[in-house]
Amino acid sequence: MTHPLFTRHQALLEDALNAARTRSFYSAFSELPKSYGGAAAEEGRAAFDARLHAAFELQQAATVGAAGHERSPYGFDLDITYPKADVDGLFAAITRTALPAWRQAGREAWVGVALEILHRLNRRSFEIAYAVMHTTGQAFMMAFQAGGPHAQDRGLEAVAYAWDELRRIPVEAIWEKPQGKNEPLKLHKRYTIVPRGIGLVIGCCTFPTWNAYPGLFASLATGNAVMVKPHPAAILPLAITVAVAREVLAEAGFSPELVTLLAHDAAEERLPRALALRPEVRLIDFTGSSANGTWLEQHARQARVYTEKAGVNPIIIDSTSDLEAMARNIAFSLSLYSGQMCTAPQNIYVPKEGIDTLGGRVPFDGVADAIGAAIRKLVADPARAVEVLGAVQNEGIAARIAIARNMGEVVVDSTSLTHPQFPDARIRTPLLLKFRGADEETLMQEWFGPIAFVVATEDTAHSIEIASKAVAERGAITLSAYTTRDTVMDDVRTSAEAVGVAVSFNLLGGIFVNQSAAFSDFHATGANPAANACFTDAAFVADRFRVVQSRRHL
Amino acid sequence: MTHPLFTRHQALLEDALNAARTRSFYSAFSELPKSYGGAAAEEGRAAFDARLHAAFELQQAATVGAAGHERSPYGFDLDITYPKADVDGLFAAITRTALPAWRQAGREAWVGVALEILHRLNRRSFEIAYAVMHTTGQAFMMAFQAGGPHAQDRGLEAVAYAWDELRRIPVEAIWEKPQGKNEPLKLHKRYTIVPRGIGLVIGCCTFPTWNAYPGLFASLATGNAVMVKPHPAAILPLAITVAVAREVLAEAGFSPELVTLLAHDAAEERLPRALALRPEVRLIDFTGSSANGTWLEQHARQARVYTEKAGVNPIIIDSTSDLEAMARNIAFSLSLYSGQMCTAPQNIYVPKEGIDTLGGRVPFDGVADAIGAAIRKLVADPARAVEVLGAVQNEGIAARIAIARNMGEVVVDSTSLTHPQFPDARIRTPLLLKFRGADEETLMQEWFGPIAFVVATEDTAHSIEIASKAVAERGAITLSAYTTRDTVMDDVRTSAEAVGVAVSFNLLGGIFVNQSAAFSDFHATGANPAANACFTDAAFVADRFRVVQSRRHL
Repeated sequence: MTHPLFTRHQALLEDALNAARTRSFYSAFSELPKSYGGAAAEEGRAAFDARLHAAFELQQAATVGAAGHERSPYGFDLDITYPKADVDGLFAAITRTALPAWRQAGREAWVGVALEILHRLNRRSFEIAYAVMHTTGQAFMMAFQAGGPHAQDRGLEAVAYAWDELRRIPVEAIWEKPQGKNEPLKLHKRYTIVPRGIGLVIGCCTFPTWNAYPGLFASLATGNAVMVKPHPAAILPLAITVAVAREVLAEAGFSPELVTLLAHDAAEERLPRALALRPEVRLIDFTGSSANGTWLEQHARQARVYTEKAGVNPIIIDSTSDLEAMARNIAFSLSLYSGQMCTAPQNIYVPKEGIDTLGGRVPFDGVADAIGAAIRKLVADPARAVEVLGAVQNEGIAARIAIARNMGEVVVDSTSLTHPQFPDARIRTPLLLKFRGADEETLMQEWFGPIAFVVATEDTAHSIEIASKAVAERGAITLSAYTTRDTVMDDVRTSAEAVGVAVSFNLLGGIFVNQSAAFSDFHATGANPAANACFTDAAFVADRFRVVQSRRHL
Repeated sequence: MTHPLFTRHQALLEDALNAARTRSFYSAFSELPKSYGGAAAEEGRAAFDARLHAAFELQQAATVGAAGHERSPYGFDLDITYPKADVDGLFAAITRTALPAWRQAGREAWVGVALEILHRLNRRSFEIAYAVMHTTGQAFMMAFQAGGPHAQDRGLEAVAYAWDELRRIPVEAIWEKPQGKNEPLKLHKRYTIVPRGIGLVIGCCTFPTWNAYPGLFASLATGNAVMVKPHPAAILPLAITVAVAREVLAEAGFSPELVTLLAHDAAEERLPRALALRPEVRLIDFTGSSANGTWLEQHARQARVYTEKAGVNPIIIDSTSDLEAMARNIAFSLSLYSGQMCTAPQNIYVPKEGIDTLGGRVPFDGVADAIGAAIRKLVADPARAVEVLGAVQNEGIAARIAIARNMGEVVVDSTSLTHPQFPDARIRTPLLLKFRGADEETLMQEWFGPIAFVVATEDTAHSIEIASKAVAERGAITLSAYTTRDTVMDDVRTSAEAVGVAVSFNLLGGIFVNQSAAFSDFHATGANPAANACFTDAAFVADRFRVVQSRRHL
């Protein structure tokens, strides 16, 4: 019998499957705040305010205290505490009672519950938006879109991929082998989908929901329990997510312990690694530093580990039809959330002899200056700038700007802006430097934050060469290129395919290289060091469950 | 444009895809020798004979000598030498010239070429049968079926799974995002399938083709090059396979270096590990010992590693409708290829108080004696016995029988038989022991070869408990159970699902637990230590390629 939650959301699931197949535009959850009704914004704001200076209620098993010291990058303490778990007790609660019934429930229940959770999360998009804004520092609109509907779309996409795998396994088969004149050999075969066990989702402090939902929903929709370990600086968005999931599970008659929160303070730095090595943890989805991601890949041998780590995203400028539009587009990409996106560019490679444009030859310095001017214009009005920049998530990023400033020649310096509503907000405009020596080790590192380099190369072939080298050795999630020449476009594409990075050409208008569209863009490739998996393909879900068959004579 | 080899075999591919979806009986390649025409057997035999005492021609790049010291378990040296590769030179030949054009050729070429190779291998089934027989020791009929058509069916199954993944990636998409009253944002997106690089296939000495074809064809059909490293004792079957693949590649206009043979002698024991750590090797398919498989999983971090390792396959006997038929079925499973199958049972758990049968209560000793009597009957006539037993592959297995003999109480002793055609063949009948103490460490180890134990347990619940423990800790590919009680069947199935092993119930007739049917049975689960992957599912193929997209404004 089909599970009622599966039936309720089946049309949505079919739409999502169709979108993932055609990869044309699709979004299940509206990114327009106004489409949520007049009261939604205020209610979400009130719900967020009510969370402040209070204990977050979760009624989770094996609670033994509290954790939580989040501070808004906009300059105030959230002052929220979260239940802290006795880890052994929590694992026991999950494996002894919660998991067996969940495993038995079967694929339609798993997928139906996952879809209902997404549906309810969507209704909480404003509350989650404020939670994301005041933990990550994103400006409100990005926090709403990326933290709410876009993250939900990514969750839905993972469920769709999972269902696409699950539905291919028949429940049973009659196997009948002809034996010439004799009776055929006949077996009845039954195929049981057996989830791996517990999936651990390790969140980051910049996109706590957008980066966590693919793994969370991929594991849940394939019948696993999910433990969510948020970054200590961005617990609230995932705590709300976990609370919603637990509510749906309980209403559907399952143990809420199937989705749990493992909040911890930054000081308890050994907890994540200890968790990751637990034998019960069979899947790990991680977003964070290369050091931690690589450690997990090497040490958490009992689990299938999916990581998104650091990268050095390049822009290759060969030529352009429109220098101003190119400069505006790049300036926006560098400024959006202060360069704190895994997709934000860092190194801009420009031939030392300059580039061709429709308006004639522009020297290297002219290209750097055009981008610099576009940045200056973008951040000239602080009230408008902060809606693009957001706030810098932590002091480490702000300190990195000061270090970077001495590395090259300053094209545009980073400055502090004052936020009209939040006087203590940590706002920094982008720092743009130029470099003559293209091979410096500096450029091979990730400078996470509003820091970018315009780099003089011998020529475009050299730009392609060193950009490819950086991608192959240090990883990248995006590569952007500007050229009016088909041969260069082919060369860039060939190199991008060889080193395994997605490429965007000639973005001049309202699309930015930072953006990754659910159901259409493959986010990360799993083919360079920035990530060991693509988060939107069959390989991301197909190994989260196994099939155990039984057969008998008929 | 569709590749002509794809078009030629498209109907076959559709049939295979359909079979894998329904998992009912399907076989593309006939297992009946007579269906290959009257001359085929003699031609195959002649082709094999012509291979003996000669150098195997391969015209492979970077050849710098010769390897090969195979000896038939039927008692004669093959005296064949194979080209030995300068490893650096071979990698260079593959990556510099062979791979780029192959990558560009695209999915229909990859799949078309793979299917044509399988088609031609099928026509060589007799030659391969003799090659398998005289390297592994399998009796002729098994060598023909498992080494020829069944292995080819498994290769086809891998190609079908690969195609099922490849075809889901659109070539391109128009992505058009509405912008209210403004013009929509429009992007053209192109999705390129990028193979991982080089797949290394490490063969075993018992099923050189059957165990190698899934990985070989999964990697090749997803656009990778494949290096085949046979076990030093079973090179010939894979050398013929490689030669056929190279012939097809060359005819199709591709470099034959896309499929290469890395033959080596047993003395060069460091070669496999050195190969496995090469940065060019991005996929490894391994069949062999747990020690080597686990080493690969832990050390070959640059590659995706798929392993099939050792296991301890149990039989749980609770009760049966037909003691004689059960004993015959088990005796045959223990005797077939002298227990040298990864699916062969080892530990037979029987309650110490005996079991219920339709003919009344049978004590523990009676069950052991029934199986023993069935073994004795099966091997009574040496001329017929050798067609089931085949020969013991190596002296180490023969020596293991002598060690095992002292471990418990002998029910049936192992004896040497004389083969009517091959007086020097290494033929051993099964050794069956009984044990009263069920928890002995002896039983938790794999005793590869014609060695089995009947183990007295407290009761069936105890049998299930210790069988499950062995599966969870040491791994198993198969679990067989006999019971007339539905509750026991449920308990066994629940335990099998929990520890991740396929289970067969009440096999009394012409189906044996050792058998795994392509397109229907999931071979291995990837959920216990015997294998880290299932060899017949989407997860086995989906990570062998990546998608790299490019997008541009429209």
